[in-house]
Amino acid sequence: MKKALVVLSGCGVYDGSEIQESVFTLYQLAKNNIEYICVAPDIIQHHVINHIKGEEMPETRNVLTESARIARGNIQALSQVDVNTADALVFPGGFGVAKNLSKWAFAGPDGEILPEIENLIIDFVKAGKPIVGICMAPSTIARALKGTDYKANLTIGNSTSASPYDMDGIIGGVNATGALNHPKEASEIMIDEKLNIITVPTYMMDVNIIEVYNGIENAISALGKVI
Amino acid sequence: MKKALVVLSGCGVYDGSEIQESVFTLYQLAKNNIEYICVAPDIIQHHVINHIKGEEMPETRNVLTESARIARGNIQALSQVDVNTADALVFPGGFGVAKNLSKWAFAGPDGEILPEIENLIIDFVKAGKPIVGICMAPSTIARALKGTDYKANLTIGNSTSASPYDMDGIIGGVNATGALNHPKEASEIMIDEKLNIITVPTYMMDVNIIEVYNGIENAISALGKVI
Repeated sequence: MKKALVVLSGCGVYDGSEIQESVFTLYQLAKNNIEYICVAPDIIQHHVINHIKGEEMPETRNVLTESARIARGNIQALSQVDVNTADALVFPGGFGVAKNLSKWAFAGPDGEILPEIENLIIDFVKAGKPIVGICMAPSTIARALKGTDYKANLTIGNSTSASPYDMDGIIGGVNATGALNHPKEASEIMIDEKLNIITVPTYMMDVNIIEVYNGIENAISALGKVI
Repeated sequence: MKKALVVLSGCGVYDGSEIQESVFTLYQLAKNNIEYICVAPDIIQHHVINHIKGEEMPETRNVLTESARIARGNIQALSQVDVNTADALVFPGGFGVAKNLSKWAFAGPDGEILPEIENLIIDFVKAGKPIVGICMAPSTIARALKGTDYKANLTIGNSTSASPYDMDGIIGGVNATGALNHPKEASEIMIDEKLNIITVPTYMMDVNIIEVYNGIENAISALGKVI
């Protein structure tokens, strides 16, 4: 059975992993007969957001500990896992990827990225192993490959359909890394056959849960064909 | 479009709503063309559990605020919603139902239940409106109907297949309320046609994410036929 590392970044769209995307990712991996190993960095979250008010809360939470909620406790610290035994790497979305894995949310493509995340992505691209980036996660892939010879063809969405976010700014940032954004709708996947990278916009666009499910189904089905 | 109230009880299987079950519930409602309105009581969680270690953490969290993570902020305090406009009531599982909505986890069928949850369930049964209880949530339905003339036929699972829990004890507790447990496997639903209550064991049994998805698909499809 092939194995995928699923990199979580907390538990909740505004300060961690997008929960719905993460759950659909785990389900689709299982449905495609791909074993999943949930991992997360054992670090403090950038901050904690009240998901009703959108305001910062005076709390401190750990990315690994909170990610464990999605994984029902079946999760390991990224640093404790032999990543070489994995056949694929999957990043669900949520602001956690741009606040905890990188600092894209605050500094765009100039923001720092966790070295262990940067190395993981570069190592998988070098090895030709597939990577899936969902929602905001393609920004993390683009940031990791910035300054390398790997020029990824990705989608983080489009700037013509409705989105809650500044898509022009985010797409400009992705392209500034040396990657190239291909405009896609929420459930449409982009496949970079050369670098073996599959991306899908899902909740980057203003869509409902069904389109998000469909996008992740499309992305993980595509992964199932190349893993 | 018919409307379902989805009652959440936190965010994480060990101290709140089971996240995977909650997400599959929202997706299946959308897929069955049922509008969902997420609600939760605006109260402090019984406690906060580290989902890796299983230990209590010295923190205080609010059930409504944490539930909002699953609902991406689209949630209301149960007390603020006109429940009479809803056509169905859906309870995903997780220990939150037995720690925050009732105290079943600590005192079984003798544990207290939040009056607003008790009244909500009784009112829906009286009105003949459908109720779905997933995983541990049938215990909350049984507790609410204890002492009434409504004798529900439910399933919270069976005591012969593998389970992480003391199924004999839990089933004994359900039956002690006056309800009757019908042994079912994880993805098998029980329909009480008289009281219009649909239940399914999912993660009460030791199963994988696919069986949990299938169970919720079965339960919400059945709801779609009676709503």
